[in-house]
Amino acid sequence: MIHNRTVRLRARPVGMSKRDDFEITEEPVPEPGDGQFRVRLDYVSLDPAMRGWISGGKSYVPPVAIGEVMRSYSAGIVEASNHPGFQEGDAVTGLFGVQTHAVSDGSNGVIKVDTAQAPLPRWIGGLGMPGTTAYFGLLDIGQPKPEETVVVSAASGAVGSIVGQIAKIQGCRAVGIAGGPEKCRYVVDDLGFDACVDYKAGSLAEDLKAACPNGIDVYYENVGGDILDTVLTQMNVFGRIPVCGLIAHYNNTEPAPGPKNLRSVLVNRLTMRGLIVFDFIKRYPEAAEALGRWHADGKLKMREDIRAGGVDAFPDVLNLLYTGGNLGKLILDLRD
Amino acid sequence: MIHNRTVRLRARPVGMSKRDDFEITEEPVPEPGDGQFRVRLDYVSLDPAMRGWISGGKSYVPPVAIGEVMRSYSAGIVEASNHPGFQEGDAVTGLFGVQTHAVSDGSNGVIKVDTAQAPLPRWIGGLGMPGTTAYFGLLDIGQPKPEETVVVSAASGAVGSIVGQIAKIQGCRAVGIAGGPEKCRYVVDDLGFDACVDYKAGSLAEDLKAACPNGIDVYYENVGGDILDTVLTQMNVFGRIPVCGLIAHYNNTEPAPGPKNLRSVLVNRLTMRGLIVFDFIKRYPEAAEALGRWHADGKLKMREDIRAGGVDAFPDVLNLLYTGGNLGKLILDLRD
Repeated sequence: MIHNRTVRLRARPVGMSKRDDFEITEEPVPEPGDGQFRVRLDYVSLDPAMRGWISGGKSYVPPVAIGEVMRSYSAGIVEASNHPGFQEGDAVTGLFGVQTHAVSDGSNGVIKVDTAQAPLPRWIGGLGMPGTTAYFGLLDIGQPKPEETVVVSAASGAVGSIVGQIAKIQGCRAVGIAGGPEKCRYVVDDLGFDACVDYKAGSLAEDLKAACPNGIDVYYENVGGDILDTVLTQMNVFGRIPVCGLIAHYNNTEPAPGPKNLRSVLVNRLTMRGLIVFDFIKRYPEAAEALGRWHADGKLKMREDIRAGGVDAFPDVLNLLYTGGNLGKLILDLRD
Repeated sequence: MIHNRTVRLRARPVGMSKRDDFEITEEPVPEPGDGQFRVRLDYVSLDPAMRGWISGGKSYVPPVAIGEVMRSYSAGIVEASNHPGFQEGDAVTGLFGVQTHAVSDGSNGVIKVDTAQAPLPRWIGGLGMPGTTAYFGLLDIGQPKPEETVVVSAASGAVGSIVGQIAKIQGCRAVGIAGGPEKCRYVVDDLGFDACVDYKAGSLAEDLKAACPNGIDVYYENVGGDILDTVLTQMNVFGRIPVCGLIAHYNNTEPAPGPKNLRSVLVNRLTMRGLIVFDFIKRYPEAAEALGRWHADGKLKMREDIRAGGVDAFPDVLNLLYTGGNLGKLILDLRD
């Protein structure tokens, strides 16, 4: 007999999340009502934002409630439908959660995807939330102009890797910041960035200056902490800083010290603006169209790090995001 | 015989500026060339930005060079002219510097002012750079909508006092932050803010929350430091933070610790943007027109704190800005 296997939130983590903060359950497979369909989920996307979703604090969406199925972008195949827009066999992505089966009415950003254009996991990989976040953050907030210098932190990560490639498509100089020579090589050699600075090498300010001889016009912020502080000292006048993530701060039990060089915001008339991709939900098709086209033209490379293990592996795989244990967009394969 | 008495920068200050960092000179009164006019200066505006102008660091304008006349907004009367747009007897304001006589070609933001509408010092007081800074920072960057809550720090100061009054004109709730009960009373009773929080009372977070029951939509930043950190925790989604000054940081010899609550920028999709009024130089007439009209309608109250003593008093009067020793826009009277 088939069950719906779920990951439910048991307790709000303190610091890094632990296995005990989650509970694996077996439940009856849900039946779709009128105007609904049921998806068999094959892949779950693991994203840094998840750490915020399970914190109790005020955030951009209500936190996942204790006892609730863990929120996630997931991809699967429709296996039963009472919804005119979705048929059995359709491949779909959406906020279906960490579970093997979900019922949906197709709202809240659910889209049908073409598995002939790209394999199913890629639609929640680089072509999913990360690419969409990169697209709106860089183009809407960063507003890069040709010849400008765009710096992105966590450059080998799911979002950062797309940010730099879109910057190249826009005619900019793309400079990554990443941890370690292996990630930096990947960013330059495989993704085609102009340069990548290894923040672990201990000379970030000097190395960044060498990589950005004309200063920095757009800094796409994924990490916060000391890296932001260093970048602030090298921003050009009227620079833009889309704040997409502050991963260095997520697992802190106390607020992290902020940038000491905030005066740069004033002196250089910088614009810092927070970005949550959900705000752009009505424009997801625009992003998917552009990303799909660039991908088809061979201008967007990306890498998924797909981990096996099904729902049981979720708590451990989640922590890979914070320990830097993955290289490429982290996805959990639910098929076991 | 009449001389031009000037204040020239002798040394770059470390921390707070000292009398010895400046030099008072007596020089021949300059003669205007073709297309130039000479002003006899009666008043000098003292502004927090001056501290930045005499630092050697990268800033939005080149620093005042060692040996150069100290930069300032000044007001005076044209006493000789070879410029078709300016006649003997015209009252003018502009970046004429701390000296008794200046020659100008009328560029770089020089405007003629009407001393029948307002007395001469007020044109470099509330109706000058402070009002202009308040106008563009609040309206262009803050974009307040009716019913929204606007908070401004240094609310009894030259810029802050105008920010709150413009917020009221826009139909907003205006809440000030100021130091001490006397300043807070002035802000509420004389300027008409809805509330004012005394940051020296030791319960800023609670008091601010009580004054802003619907959260904060616009925070007009004049001070930085701990106050910014507290405000960040009470910002509403899609809030705006014009960064006009960071006076708490100006006299630090080391960069001040930044806001610990920067995560609010991400979670609440805040926009922080630095503001330098010089960027709006071509729109100064627009601001002067609006400020003049509101002033004539009795909707803008302001207070000048005019100190006597001529150019010799400049170094001491400047430091009043940083010790909180003034109440209202600080102006030095050069007529002695």
